[in-house]
Amino acid sequence: MSQERLIAACQLIHHARTGVLATLSHSIEGHPMASTAAVGNDAQGQLILFLSKLAEHTRNLEADPRLSVLLTRPKEQGVHEEARLTIIGKAERLCPDAALIARLFQQVPQWAHYQQLPDFHFWRVTPLRLRLINGFGAASWIAATDYLKTAATIFIDHD
Amino acid sequence: MSQERLIAACQLIHHARTGVLATLSHSIEGHPMASTAAVGNDAQGQLILFLSKLAEHTRNLEADPRLSVLLTRPKEQGVHEEARLTIIGKAERLCPDAALIARLFQQVPQWAHYQQLPDFHFWRVTPLRLRLINGFGAASWIAATDYLKTAATIFIDHD
Repeated sequence: MSQERLIAACQLIHHARTGVLATLSHSIEGHPMASTAAVGNDAQGQLILFLSKLAEHTRNLEADPRLSVLLTRPKEQGVHEEARLTIIGKAERLCPDAALIARLFQQVPQWAHYQQLPDFHFWRVTPLRLRLINGFGAASWIAATDYLKTAATIFIDHD
Repeated sequence: MSQERLIAACQLIHHARTGVLATLSHSIEGHPMASTAAVGNDAQGQLILFLSKLAEHTRNLEADPRLSVLLTRPKEQGVHEEARLTIIGKAERLCPDAALIARLFQQVPQWAHYQQLPDFHFWRVTPLRLRLINGFGAASWIAATDYLKTAATIFIDHD
């Protein structure tokens, strides 16, 4: 795994503010379901979600924590040309400390408003594997351990 | 189901040229996987994909045809405000006739180039259910039969 690809993955996660979740449907059992969500990240490079209990994807994650999250950085040259990263992992409920809450509300300002609603909760995505497509045909798998090792340096440098 | 929501779903599918697929991973068994794809549509309002055999999502669909496709129409007001539609269905290989090929290459011009590559094939998405989120909190399920009945009139009127 080249350092260049690990850095590309870190940058995509560091800058992403929206993503597409793939979860397993509880209502159409086992069927994969795609939906959108705002995303933030912690200082270790893990994605954080802030989800309404009423949302379909939240009910899916409560029944089965397996998910993936797609992040894209458009190059405005058609869908095959943009850099994109799929983080495959598990989501778990999280009670963030004050520092992380401040970080997240800076990343995604509308979350400060949603916090006043009773049914929103934070979830952390623990990565298992990542799939980076860094332009047409340039696809590769990244191990979570490799990603997290690189993220530990990059996310601190840039925060 | 109001006619307004059915029309909103038809318009999203009619105009969409990119989508996010959720498929079931063959390599991380059963795990949902999100990925991007260009999308076209046929005159009945069904999505058509043109996928490389080498792509991870294609291998997933060959092993399990269940998928969903997320389409969005941004309103540029943050992720919760945009209209979005998830089509939950099954993908199957398709040999389109000349009229459908002409339609698809007009919708997605880069597909004419990919056709010269040996490993690209067409897939049709047969919808089972659709989930429309027409702005913050305005979520509803749409039955495939209701959608296809409306699409049969709208897609012909606008083609």
